[in-house]
Amino acid sequence: MSFQSFNPPRRILMGPGPSDISPQVLSSLSRPIVGHLDPLFIGMMDEVKALLQYAFQTKNEFTIALSAPGSAGMEACFVNLVEPGDKVIVCRNGVFGDRMVQNVIRVDAEPIIVDTTWGRAVEIDKVEQALIDNPDAKFVAFVHAETATGAVSDAKTLCALAHKHDCLSIVDAVTSLGGIELRVDEWGIDAIYSGSQKCLSCVPGLSPLSFSEKAVSVIKNRKTLVQSWFLDQSLVMSYWSGEGKRSYHHTAPVNSLYALHESLLHLHNEGLENSWDRHKAQHEDLARGLEKLGIKFIVPKEERLPQLNAIYIPDGVDDVKVRNYLLNHYNLEIGAGLGDFAGKAWRIGLMGYAARSENVALCLTALEDALNQ
Amino acid sequence: MSFQSFNPPRRILMGPGPSDISPQVLSSLSRPIVGHLDPLFIGMMDEVKALLQYAFQTKNEFTIALSAPGSAGMEACFVNLVEPGDKVIVCRNGVFGDRMVQNVIRVDAEPIIVDTTWGRAVEIDKVEQALIDNPDAKFVAFVHAETATGAVSDAKTLCALAHKHDCLSIVDAVTSLGGIELRVDEWGIDAIYSGSQKCLSCVPGLSPLSFSEKAVSVIKNRKTLVQSWFLDQSLVMSYWSGEGKRSYHHTAPVNSLYALHESLLHLHNEGLENSWDRHKAQHEDLARGLEKLGIKFIVPKEERLPQLNAIYIPDGVDDVKVRNYLLNHYNLEIGAGLGDFAGKAWRIGLMGYAARSENVALCLTALEDALNQ
Repeated sequence: MSFQSFNPPRRILMGPGPSDISPQVLSSLSRPIVGHLDPLFIGMMDEVKALLQYAFQTKNEFTIALSAPGSAGMEACFVNLVEPGDKVIVCRNGVFGDRMVQNVIRVDAEPIIVDTTWGRAVEIDKVEQALIDNPDAKFVAFVHAETATGAVSDAKTLCALAHKHDCLSIVDAVTSLGGIELRVDEWGIDAIYSGSQKCLSCVPGLSPLSFSEKAVSVIKNRKTLVQSWFLDQSLVMSYWSGEGKRSYHHTAPVNSLYALHESLLHLHNEGLENSWDRHKAQHEDLARGLEKLGIKFIVPKEERLPQLNAIYIPDGVDDVKVRNYLLNHYNLEIGAGLGDFAGKAWRIGLMGYAARSENVALCLTALEDALNQ
Repeated sequence: MSFQSFNPPRRILMGPGPSDISPQVLSSLSRPIVGHLDPLFIGMMDEVKALLQYAFQTKNEFTIALSAPGSAGMEACFVNLVEPGDKVIVCRNGVFGDRMVQNVIRVDAEPIIVDTTWGRAVEIDKVEQALIDNPDAKFVAFVHAETATGAVSDAKTLCALAHKHDCLSIVDAVTSLGGIELRVDEWGIDAIYSGSQKCLSCVPGLSPLSFSEKAVSVIKNRKTLVQSWFLDQSLVMSYWSGEGKRSYHHTAPVNSLYALHESLLHLHNEGLENSWDRHKAQHEDLARGLEKLGIKFIVPKEERLPQLNAIYIPDGVDDVKVRNYLLNHYNLEIGAGLGDFAGKAWRIGLMGYAARSENVALCLTALEDALNQ
């Protein structure tokens, strides 16, 4: 076999992630590598922590970037907090709620599943009923922004409900962080994870993670060993704590963390609320254009995510043909449907650096062209 | 707080990893990001697989780059292959053998520990005795190249021994892959993992992984669910198989995989045996220079790794002062001792792109200067 360097074209990424990356973040990856215990790197990691605290709107001391993708971030929450036999109320309104259920099963805990129709926000009443029916439940887990369906759930109310019933909240913010309002401390979120490749517009492979004091205390008082060595956060707390010597756990993904630092810096410079507003404004432009094309949204207006627009594929239109045309003719990627929506929906992402007027304009023009082919 | 872009200096990395990275590999990171299900990316992933098969010297169909560091690669081997109650013979002659023991415990299996003095190769006789004493053992696990001590173990003989006693072999090749002779198929290795940031001279964060047909069959015939969702390889086999549609499991770390592709391409172009020879030649130059400085190796000559030179800190010399001097005065990083060797040893890495004459020359001159300060 013969091999050559891989030189991809410039794609415009408007799928469910990875999202577009700014030239500045992209070039930060190629900065010279330093050791993962180098004082300069440790200084940068302290800044990553502070910038993540800003992005999450939290003062949580335990706020880190896990050295693996968001699905490992999800698993880190469950394996560290939940012990065998624990009851966990899991809200399921898409692929990622179902993945939470799989995680609960794999720690030998008991999932109490609250199902909501795909494409809708988690139903608060049903969650409250599940809490009443299961007074021994210890956790309420839900997805803030369902990437599979484009629906946002009321994280603030769900967390208040969890606390009212003495439960800790576990929140998937993979697609929400940076794109819509999210206030970890104010809303009382106990454990939250995200992904680097969505509204932060960084490379995929890192999972921002934050635990409240209450969550840390649950971890410290576990009766059983965390089943994963790699994800056992009690082993990495000392690395991130900033107190005294950083001890070796694993080799941090140095260059990816340069990119996370740079992308968080951009978010900080823009301002979190400005970023939320920008996502909303671009979404409104996109939605107007899609409506003109006669395209229907899956999610009712008031439950829609601005950064993830799930739309029905018009009748008689060939899913794969359109997406291939967009990719091959315009270098434009939009997302296929996932799970129940495979073959029935497209997902147009307006995440982070992708949420710009030039992207919205291109997407609408290209889609119109593709539908007329 | 105020934040700025992180602009590190050019360090020369001669510690235990991450190792030096060539300008070509470093710049490959900044190539435009494409979607993780983009046909172009999938084509590149097929090449990564073929290049990893070459590096491992295997035809194993299941040969992948795990989207997480080497310690997750280790865990992937144990959680996928080992079931609760299984007996695993674990050879422990350093930090990473001990980490294997922790992994065995966390899958509720039974480790049979064969201890060898740190700084020495795993003792074959002791392993054979353990196999005789435990005829129901199912696995033999050992570290090929102990990064904590700089000792190489006889992987070929250990694998033959494992097979003779109907055990599967699990091999840590984090520091060996690309640096010393390693032949997965010829030696009969059943499960092997490595790291991207050692002799492959890629960025940290990926773990090359390969399972033999026998190992895959063990996974397919498990009685219990793999306890980790993220590391459950039965869920990702379809992604890497190249047969039909790639299904979504998690978002691959796209840009890090560009760098892995590029670094494997370099290894392929140099030739695997040429790379092994280069590591050996550079090691011999370094060893001659260190001997002239009166510095002693921890590991006896015939058990030494060329790519990881563990040496005793000379009497009366301040460990931290010397390493700080090297870093601050020469931008040169060498490694501290780990585990039992903390404060007693240094580890000089000659891994991948670091195994060059200019690095050896700098290291010897700088170390002599530092010792005379």
